[in-house]
Amino acid sequence: MSTNSFGHLFRVTTWGESHGPAIGATVDGCPPGVAIDEAFIQQWLDKRKPGQSKFTTQRREADEVRILSGVFEGQTTGMPVQLLIENTDQRSKDYSEIAEKFRPGHADITYWQKYGIRDYRGGGRSSARETASRVAAGGLARAAIAALVPGVEITGYMTRVGIHEIDRTRFDAAEIGNNPFWCPDAQMAATWADYLDGLRKSGNSVGAVVEVVAKGVPAGLGAPVYGKLDTDLAAAMMSINAVKGVEIGEGMAAAMLTGEENADEIFMGNDGQPVYSSNHAGGILGGISTGQELVVRFAVKPTSSILKPRQTITKSGEAAEIITKGRHDPCVGIRAVPVGEAMMACVILDHLLLHRGQVGENRGRIG
Amino acid sequence: MSTNSFGHLFRVTTWGESHGPAIGATVDGCPPGVAIDEAFIQQWLDKRKPGQSKFTTQRREADEVRILSGVFEGQTTGMPVQLLIENTDQRSKDYSEIAEKFRPGHADITYWQKYGIRDYRGGGRSSARETASRVAAGGLARAAIAALVPGVEITGYMTRVGIHEIDRTRFDAAEIGNNPFWCPDAQMAATWADYLDGLRKSGNSVGAVVEVVAKGVPAGLGAPVYGKLDTDLAAAMMSINAVKGVEIGEGMAAAMLTGEENADEIFMGNDGQPVYSSNHAGGILGGISTGQELVVRFAVKPTSSILKPRQTITKSGEAAEIITKGRHDPCVGIRAVPVGEAMMACVILDHLLLHRGQVGENRGRIG
Amino acid sequence: MSTNSFGHLFRVTTWGESHGPAIGATVDGCPPGVAIDEAFIQQWLDKRKPGQSKFTTQRREADEVRILSGVFEGQTTGMPVQLLIENTDQRSKDYSEIAEKFRPGHADITYWQKYGIRDYRGGGRSSARETASRVAAGGLARAAIAALVPGVEITGYMTRVGIHEIDRTRFDAAEIGNNPFWCPDAQMAATWADYLDGLRKSGNSVGAVVEVVAKGVPAGLGAPVYGKLDTDLAAAMMSINAVKGVEIGEGMAAAMLTGEENADEIFMGNDGQPVYSSNHAGGILGGISTGQELVVRFAVKPTSSILKPRQTITKSGEAAEIITKGRHDPCVGIRAVPVGEAMMACVILDHLLLHRGQVGENRGRIG
Amino acid sequence: MSTNSFGHLFRVTTWGESHGPAIGATVDGCPPGVAIDEAFIQQWLDKRKPGQSKFTTQRREADEVRILSGVFEGQTTGMPVQLLIENTDQRSKDYSEIAEKFRPGHADITYWQKYGIRDYRGGGRSSARETASRVAAGGLARAAIAALVPGVEITGYMTRVGIHEIDRTRFDAAEIGNNPFWCPDAQMAATWADYLDGLRKSGNSVGAVVEVVAKGVPAGLGAPVYGKLDTDLAAAMMSINAVKGVEIGEGMAAAMLTGEENADEIFMGNDGQPVYSSNHAGGILGGISTGQELVVRFAVKPTSSILKPRQTITKSGEAAEIITKGRHDPCVGIRAVPVGEAMMACVILDHLLLHRGQVGENRGRIG
Repeated sequence: MSTNSFGHLFRVTTWGESHGPAIGATVDGCPPGVAIDEAFIQQWLDKRKPGQSKFTTQRREADEVRILSGVFEGQTTGMPVQLLIENTDQRSKDYSEIAEKFRPGHADITYWQKYGIRDYRGGGRSSARETASRVAAGGLARAAIAALVPGVEITGYMTRVGIHEIDRTRFDAAEIGNNPFWCPDAQMAATWADYLDGLRKSGNSVGAVVEVVAKGVPAGLGAPVYGKLDTDLAAAMMSINAVKGVEIGEGMAAAMLTGEENADEIFMGNDGQPVYSSNHAGGILGGISTGQELVVRFAVKPTSSILKPRQTITKSGEAAEIITKGRHDPCVGIRAVPVGEAMMACVILDHLLLHRGQVGENRGRIG
Repeated sequence: MSTNSFGHLFRVTTWGESHGPAIGATVDGCPPGVAIDEAFIQQWLDKRKPGQSKFTTQRREADEVRILSGVFEGQTTGMPVQLLIENTDQRSKDYSEIAEKFRPGHADITYWQKYGIRDYRGGGRSSARETASRVAAGGLARAAIAALVPGVEITGYMTRVGIHEIDRTRFDAAEIGNNPFWCPDAQMAATWADYLDGLRKSGNSVGAVVEVVAKGVPAGLGAPVYGKLDTDLAAAMMSINAVKGVEIGEGMAAAMLTGEENADEIFMGNDGQPVYSSNHAGGILGGISTGQELVVRFAVKPTSSILKPRQTITKSGEAAEIITKGRHDPCVGIRAVPVGEAMMACVILDHLLLHRGQVGENRGRIG
Repeated sequence: MSTNSFGHLFRVTTWGESHGPAIGATVDGCPPGVAIDEAFIQQWLDKRKPGQSKFTTQRREADEVRILSGVFEGQTTGMPVQLLIENTDQRSKDYSEIAEKFRPGHADITYWQKYGIRDYRGGGRSSARETASRVAAGGLARAAIAALVPGVEITGYMTRVGIHEIDRTRFDAAEIGNNPFWCPDAQMAATWADYLDGLRKSGNSVGAVVEVVAKGVPAGLGAPVYGKLDTDLAAAMMSINAVKGVEIGEGMAAAMLTGEENADEIFMGNDGQPVYSSNHAGGILGGISTGQELVVRFAVKPTSSILKPRQTITKSGEAAEIITKGRHDPCVGIRAVPVGEAMMACVILDHLLLHRGQVGENRGRIG
Repeated sequence: MSTNSFGHLFRVTTWGESHGPAIGATVDGCPPGVAIDEAFIQQWLDKRKPGQSKFTTQRREADEVRILSGVFEGQTTGMPVQLLIENTDQRSKDYSEIAEKFRPGHADITYWQKYGIRDYRGGGRSSARETASRVAAGGLARAAIAALVPGVEITGYMTRVGIHEIDRTRFDAAEIGNNPFWCPDAQMAATWADYLDGLRKSGNSVGAVVEVVAKGVPAGLGAPVYGKLDTDLAAAMMSINAVKGVEIGEGMAAAMLTGEENADEIFMGNDGQPVYSSNHAGGILGGISTGQELVVRFAVKPTSSILKPRQTITKSGEAAEIITKGRHDPCVGIRAVPVGEAMMACVILDHLLLHRGQVGENRGRIG
């Protein structure tokens, strides 16, 4: 039992604070013989790295990962893999205000109330910086998935920024990497750019919706009834900083449908595998993958650190006004995209191993 | 590691199939000295019991719980509590169709693909019948919470049935028990009755949204970063049959707000505890409870078992048409209300114990 | 985290008290498709059943196991298996003495000090009756092992009763079932019979050593460094009532050997598998099985319930004398033999699944 | 589930290989507000450090620990604590022999058979170097215990080296630190020095017995029936490299005693706490601490790396002779003493937290 660990068999424990010497992920349970090196993991970290556009925090972190254990001659050994990322841009500044005043919408007050002590520098453990460790672990998970089940593709993108949602008829996966928003709708990317620019200049921020899709995931992953694939995905995404809602397939909108509308009818495909008339279920039935695309969506709340003055209290209970200066993201959802992908990768790998452990290779055939 | 277990220290393992001899919950980690008897637990089971109105399945189950262990002379002993519920209405019928054909929207096909064997009678383990075990465990959790922290109140209700959402200005908690829908809006309850009657008669079904609120939960519960209170609540709710989305506080709508709109400003209350100008956060900051109301919402998809014929395949891969007869719920969301309450109770108790374990009674004071 | 659960993937949770309505094991993670029925499990329970000779407690329990879940048409489904055993011989008697006085050598005083409440009837949860649940789970584990790796044989026997140890030169596996002591040395069995008869008549008891050997276990089981096979076996055996020591291979005697004496040299066998010149290691190197026999030994202390008067105190702190009447075992080690076998089976199955989960079928070949 | 993790609530995950860049421990669940710094932890590492006498390996490691997270301004924050130790003396040498030949008595062959890949440099993950991480974690555990329960003292020492056992009548705790063997019997320490010198010169090695005693541990720790204090201690000690047997109190010798001899009678002490006539039980009844001294003993096998030539095979299955050169311990038991202490500390702290979580401060009073 560790509340800083995630996963059943592919077990990721992250550690470290925003302004400590380093952060990292201790990853246990990775299959042996997976080809991996720092460069492979680095590419995913680079996607999450701050300071890549004016729409994310201007903190400059190299985010260089080092593999300290569990890899030998370019392959995993089955031993714990330590992924360490040094913190290099802990800008020395005056923390006296943040040490005393609780920033609204932040973990400042609850960490204090819970623990009676907190590393307030840059949010400490509650900083989104922790998600770099997840991305590193997710990189390893991707490599292991590829070794086990060729052809799995995990893709995250934003579908909404504040009041502006993408138009699904313009969805183009090729566009996702062409803009700083991981936006599959080129036209909407332009709208977001203007919108976020305005918010940023006014010292405001806004929420977003991120969608993560996994293709090529085999049927049969997920273990009823508390290790369901959707249960673990929900936990994975909700554990990301600032996430307030998680949806599988139709998500909350499923409440508005009738049974007739929501039915995914089943047919036999040409390759002898079942196919479905639709994917309202998001690729999961009874907590187990169907072989369709896994579709997960989550809402990220607007960054709480804004330049507008707000009312708060101090540790000693005095009323106070606070303006959070610093290098913050106008839309923290942007950097949540690679994090969501990483969590998806970790969950898929974990369930590949879990399924193999309990069931092995044999399972029910159709036809 | 058991995928049929839930919770860190208050650990609930459910077992049993819809049409086996019994179902139950093995509950470990309950504090000793908690006053409990079968009657106390029974009251919550009675809320979930099928057949109480024409809007839920007409299956007749006594749902009588027996405590087989862990309780002595009316108090828990700290030993595992076995809560057993016999299945009494496993109506003998012909299962040959369901044994061969996969019902769309059900776990039939995925259980088969994963395990190569499934107890198809009434859905087996994937039946909503499993949730009775959760409700029993939740009853025990409520008793333990009351022993630890007086004044916690957990209340669930429906806020939406299909296209009809409650009007929050008419919200009246006293109405919740006055209609078969746990609806806090008396006027909407009448609308739902008509709406569901129509759907039921046409052999259709519809989704719903359930909201569960906990009052009186102390600040400081929840453990970053993968045992966050919202993470565990999301997992708890997503693990309930047919749930496709989970929200905390503003939920998915948080994506549409600006940082300014979403800010819950902090003030000092008259009792020396912090108060907040609003509760967009749903009572959780940084994964830790603030002391405000915990607000969780989840969407339940429409019952997949409908009387409309749909296309499917058989185990041998043949195309087939299926009509699911039987005693099903036109809106399974109704019976999910006490289940959501039970999961909330389990999560709260679990985190009370977890907090006490790591931190004890002392924590950061304000003022 | 449940302290009444054992195992990583084959997860056994036992529940129930000596004089409650029933005891049982909730077993999660069993592979699907394992042929099993109550008769198969019953045979192992019958080995442990009390009252089979004058050397074990005269309590009469049918110890009839019922499978309440997880099995369908004679095969496991991969769902939790509930194994329930009703208590039928909870002889009504006067518990007032045991309720007030703490029996020396028993859990009475520590359960009271820890929990402030205890089910004192027959020792409640701390009774050796709990081990029947383990034996039932072990029966299921044996069936699953047989389905995964044909040819594994698990055999337990006693090697010492008090001052009398078997002579290994007379070791005859065929004798084990021929005497009430699971003794592989027929001559020693006769000695034990006289010795125990004397102790029983004088109201005394004595300790014993049990050895459990598993043949046919493949190389590669066990996961460094805290899930080592020897670590899990040590925990498994030490968790059995009254066990005070656990040894692997040479055990404590390894301390007396030189490196030269203790070396198990390695050769290539005719079947292309490594063979060893000896098995000081007990079949485990670096926490991983070598393919040799697994050899585990544990010491069971003498039954604390004896007819000799001893000094103790009452709940209110008064000095008192106690004589424990009742139906007790003069040598509780006898009934620990099938329990040790069951724990061995659970550990082996657990590690078969764990290995398959992380590594799959492929591993390092020699030659 | 991580097989490189230990503990329920105080959860230690170690990582790293003998000749990788670093090793360490990721420790989660530590209570907040515990005063700690690197110097405090370093003192325990210095006890284990190799090269301090001619009786331990001549490898030179600074074993300097760095705290990378979870500590702020000299106190733990309740967040994961990363304890990192760089490897500085990975002497570059020719590993071609060890890469091909399996050293008898080592994990070489089983790691290969299990994983199909192994970091053979210095034994990789199976090296006793891993125990430095345990000692670091144990240092943190000691600090936390002191914060929770003042007065706990944990002391380890050797009681046997090969054929030479200490004389308990000469036991003097003050002697333990006065010789390179942690020997409480000054006369025996001299005997061991000669004995080991002879073995070392002849290129041989020998086993040992280590005893670890904890004083001042409150009654009530340990959670039946698979999280018993003795169960967790057995697992903790058996997980240490080269350990082949674990005993609690009388240990294996309990098998030779009668119930009358083994009885620890109970009396009321002057301070209103129970006292016992003896401590055959080693301070644990029913898996729960009695408040007496906790007494654990374990046997360490002789170092397998000896200078005598032995028979083995190569990866390709060829017969080969091997002489293990290098810097090895003639009696690895010596350095196991601080490791055993560290494991004891981790187990005690873990159960302090676990007890507080489930039961809180209140428990059964006597008198």
